[in-house]
Amino acid sequence: MPLPRLSRAGLRRALPVLDWASRYTRDTATSDLVAALIVTIMLIPQSLAYALLAGLPPEMGLYASILPLVAYAIFGTSRALAVGPVAVVSLMTAAAIGELGLTDPAQIALAAGTLAFLSGAILLAMGVLKLGFLANFLSHPVIAGFITASGILIAASQLKHILGVSAEGHTLLETLLALARDLPQTNLITLGIGVASVAFLFWVRRGLKPLLRRMGLGARAADILAKAGPVAAVAVTTLAVWGLGLHDRGVAIVGTVPTGLPPLTPPSADPALWRQLLLPALLISVIGFVESVSVAQTLAAKKRQRIVPDQELTGLGASNVAAALTGGYPVTGGFARSVVNYDAGAETPAAGAFTAVGILLAALLLTPLLYFLPKATLAATIIVAVLSLVDFSILKRSWTYSRLDFAAVLATIVTTLLVGVEIGVSAGVVLSIFLHLYKTSKPHVAEVGLVPGTHHFRNIKRHKVDTLPGVLTLRVDESLYFANARFLEEYILNRVAECRDLRHVVLMFPAVNEVDMSALETLEEVNRRLSDMQISLHLTEVKGPVMDRLKRSHFLHDLTGRVFLSQYDAWCALQPGATPGAKQEGLAAQ
Amino acid sequence: MPLPRLSRAGLRRALPVLDWASRYTRDTATSDLVAALIVTIMLIPQSLAYALLAGLPPEMGLYASILPLVAYAIFGTSRALAVGPVAVVSLMTAAAIGELGLTDPAQIALAAGTLAFLSGAILLAMGVLKLGFLANFLSHPVIAGFITASGILIAASQLKHILGVSAEGHTLLETLLALARDLPQTNLITLGIGVASVAFLFWVRRGLKPLLRRMGLGARAADILAKAGPVAAVAVTTLAVWGLGLHDRGVAIVGTVPTGLPPLTPPSADPALWRQLLLPALLISVIGFVESVSVAQTLAAKKRQRIVPDQELTGLGASNVAAALTGGYPVTGGFARSVVNYDAGAETPAAGAFTAVGILLAALLLTPLLYFLPKATLAATIIVAVLSLVDFSILKRSWTYSRLDFAAVLATIVTTLLVGVEIGVSAGVVLSIFLHLYKTSKPHVAEVGLVPGTHHFRNIKRHKVDTLPGVLTLRVDESLYFANARFLEEYILNRVAECRDLRHVVLMFPAVNEVDMSALETLEEVNRRLSDMQISLHLTEVKGPVMDRLKRSHFLHDLTGRVFLSQYDAWCALQPGATPGAKQEGLAAQ
Repeated sequence: MPLPRLSRAGLRRALPVLDWASRYTRDTATSDLVAALIVTIMLIPQSLAYALLAGLPPEMGLYASILPLVAYAIFGTSRALAVGPVAVVSLMTAAAIGELGLTDPAQIALAAGTLAFLSGAILLAMGVLKLGFLANFLSHPVIAGFITASGILIAASQLKHILGVSAEGHTLLETLLALARDLPQTNLITLGIGVASVAFLFWVRRGLKPLLRRMGLGARAADILAKAGPVAAVAVTTLAVWGLGLHDRGVAIVGTVPTGLPPLTPPSADPALWRQLLLPALLISVIGFVESVSVAQTLAAKKRQRIVPDQELTGLGASNVAAALTGGYPVTGGFARSVVNYDAGAETPAAGAFTAVGILLAALLLTPLLYFLPKATLAATIIVAVLSLVDFSILKRSWTYSRLDFAAVLATIVTTLLVGVEIGVSAGVVLSIFLHLYKTSKPHVAEVGLVPGTHHFRNIKRHKVDTLPGVLTLRVDESLYFANARFLEEYILNRVAECRDLRHVVLMFPAVNEVDMSALETLEEVNRRLSDMQISLHLTEVKGPVMDRLKRSHFLHDLTGRVFLSQYDAWCALQPGATPGAKQEGLAAQ
Repeated sequence: MPLPRLSRAGLRRALPVLDWASRYTRDTATSDLVAALIVTIMLIPQSLAYALLAGLPPEMGLYASILPLVAYAIFGTSRALAVGPVAVVSLMTAAAIGELGLTDPAQIALAAGTLAFLSGAILLAMGVLKLGFLANFLSHPVIAGFITASGILIAASQLKHILGVSAEGHTLLETLLALARDLPQTNLITLGIGVASVAFLFWVRRGLKPLLRRMGLGARAADILAKAGPVAAVAVTTLAVWGLGLHDRGVAIVGTVPTGLPPLTPPSADPALWRQLLLPALLISVIGFVESVSVAQTLAAKKRQRIVPDQELTGLGASNVAAALTGGYPVTGGFARSVVNYDAGAETPAAGAFTAVGILLAALLLTPLLYFLPKATLAATIIVAVLSLVDFSILKRSWTYSRLDFAAVLATIVTTLLVGVEIGVSAGVVLSIFLHLYKTSKPHVAEVGLVPGTHHFRNIKRHKVDTLPGVLTLRVDESLYFANARFLEEYILNRVAECRDLRHVVLMFPAVNEVDMSALETLEEVNRRLSDMQISLHLTEVKGPVMDRLKRSHFLHDLTGRVFLSQYDAWCALQPGATPGAKQEGLAAQ
């Protein structure tokens, strides 16, 4: 059987690497190499720290930063996105694995890999089915609330490493209670390392860059050097633990990190495990996709480049499958790292591939040096990184703008903190969909009249307008569909019941973008009931697509009145004394 | 503590009985009594049959037809609604109880009563919280599909009584397979009774009324007499079984029905049972409410009366609690019986109370006569009644009108038949909400231009229009919210990328009924990006409520262009050579 022939353009769409690699130059390579070097330095401590956050051995963080980056470089469309372990997805991984109640480290690693595999498969399937729009169901306020709550959860989960205790909890409350209980067991040396690291890293963020600038460094160099702060913290505290023998005094360290190539790790084939991980994998896929696409779009826009969301699904899906098969865990495009990559001058996805080589070298050569790295230092880098995610201003902004959006944010934050990440984000999505349906289920309907001397019609409550005797003109400010069909019927019939000597009801449809089957049946019913009362029903300014559809039903045939191109035409035809002409079926306004 | 003082009008709203009872006359009483007599005759076999369908002892059907009717007469707003056991709710009850896997009849009866109690509590809570609009989330196509599929399921479930076998199944497939397996055990006498009853009842529906009319009877009398067909079938077959001793030849009969007042039956207090029944109770409440309100509205409209949906929740809630406490099971307003009640002249809810007295007398006096009533006859009355619910024309109508509505109907029918009633109706609801979001997530956006010689702007693809150089004018035909915010951003930026020498982008908002927080942030982003490209963003024809909200954000402050009252104003101001005036913040079109 011959293979289906792919057009060259189609192949380039499916494999963006063909596009940029064919035009790759020595200059581009230099830029990409510099960016990769900086990102590698940043990524080594981050990958170890996020693995710790996910409750996994540190090498899984390194493995998740090698082949997944190569896979994204081949299939992804963003020029600057840095894929790898990120904070929120690591937290969600920890939650998903925690629910399984496993204790055997090998089982936990297998479950994490399987989670990455499922997540990758879901992303690939969404890419093939062009389901990228599903990510739109996460509203901005829900995402903002979720990220903020996740930041708090992550920071709280790391406090145990700063204190050197073993407190564990599934929710914020449990974590804090466990910390309070374990407080007396605090290891003071660990606490010292942790607090010093946090203070140093905050100072690096706030104070180092201005200092370097004052010392005569360029803005970009100062910025990049400031990003190396975590590496300095790692180096100094590791040396301190080694030199002073602090490990023997109770400071928890990373310990042995295996040296060598990433292992080949097939995912579990246990259907029970798949069932348990399916929902978490779906949530991780969608959240990871949204986070990644937002970053990618922001960076692409700065250089007037474009990213293709449905192709991004393929890129991220391939990355996660790669992570699953080579000892990693779920990955996505991270915000901070991508910005560093971009600022450092990355011009093509090759920068990601070069970073992968850097991390590979680290896995082959540097792991013995990480033996004495204190966990408190890693926890400090996480805490400083995630506290920048926490932003309660969304609460104030949404409160000012829309109470319903505020409700969605608040519900997401509170549920995420009190119940957990999976229920939290699901509650936010369900609530925002519900609130949207609720809003549109009671549409704004205005009685309108003619602004004297014009052809414009406006709300009689907001403007001085003329009306015709015996004519009720209503402008419906919403698409008509099942959730508001009954409302409209009741509204019209109640309004009609209030009016004496009514002969015509005119519905203005300039803002009606859809009339679904439920609404169609409602309009038929309204027409029938008005007809029983000897009142004609007219429509005006019906949009083209709506009219096209109405023509396919019996409604226009049964309509007792007419369909007018413009409201002014209706005004003229329904004047007392005017003779309404023949029914103007088939005229659409727009 | 003093009781809150209720205004007289408030009390009448809460207890509609006060309203009609104060004006009750001897004439009204006569009409109501006649209607009640006819409905009672119809209801006796129906209540027994529906209890059989629900898998409950026959007396529970009678008990569900006594106090619930009185409760509705006090709290309900419909003048003609006949409350009691109905086919679809009985089927849903059977499904809910079946899932519990109970075998002890007392346990089953307790579960059915508890289901009615939960359903009543949910309806009452929805009434207090004014959540009647939740019923709107069931679209017409979903309801139509669900009712049709339920009719088929019900008819199939009754075939075993016609054949005299014990075949049971949870889904249509299981039921049919069990019937096929049991076919050799068919009891031929039972089959004879069943087939004869079905044939007789169909003839009564189709042939009796014309015959009676030809014999000189009035239309109404003929109609009412035809409704007594099931009673005749019950009487004749019962006499036949008794006279010919068919019971000894394997014809299943109703057997002993306890004589006496309905028992007092407190619901179960077992939290595990409540948890299991909560979702079924919610579905029964919503489906029952929708069915009941549709009938009540149809009948009220004929006499220009009004029903109050939120008060109907209270009426039906009280009915179900009454059913739960007096040996019944979930009830609602039934279609066929309400129409008979209305046609027979019922003028107030007192007709329902009189019917209750009729059924009470039956429970006290007639039950011994029901001993030899063959189950096959009851099954025949159910089959004939529900086959009128089956209406596949909705498939054809929705296919013609809208493929998405068709998908919702088909999914509801197929899922209900293959998986069951609860999953079926839930799938329909979820799918219609999803399809609605999907539709609105890719809104229609048209580039528009000026129709020469007018002030009207139309789609440049559908009309011959003029455009301005350097100006891109887009009309957005959908409210902007989270599901389409990203789409709009990509659409605008892609369009802008295609145009050379663009200086202004104008967004026409006459059909934008809402801009939520996600869409606001998207508009801010679009404004920022266009600003980077030295392109101004303008808005025109922004609706009043949308403008009110935008004024509460920073968007209008940051907007690079202006907000125009009408698109024509924008046209004039953006002409080459025109000097765009000061930013007109705060001007709303409508």
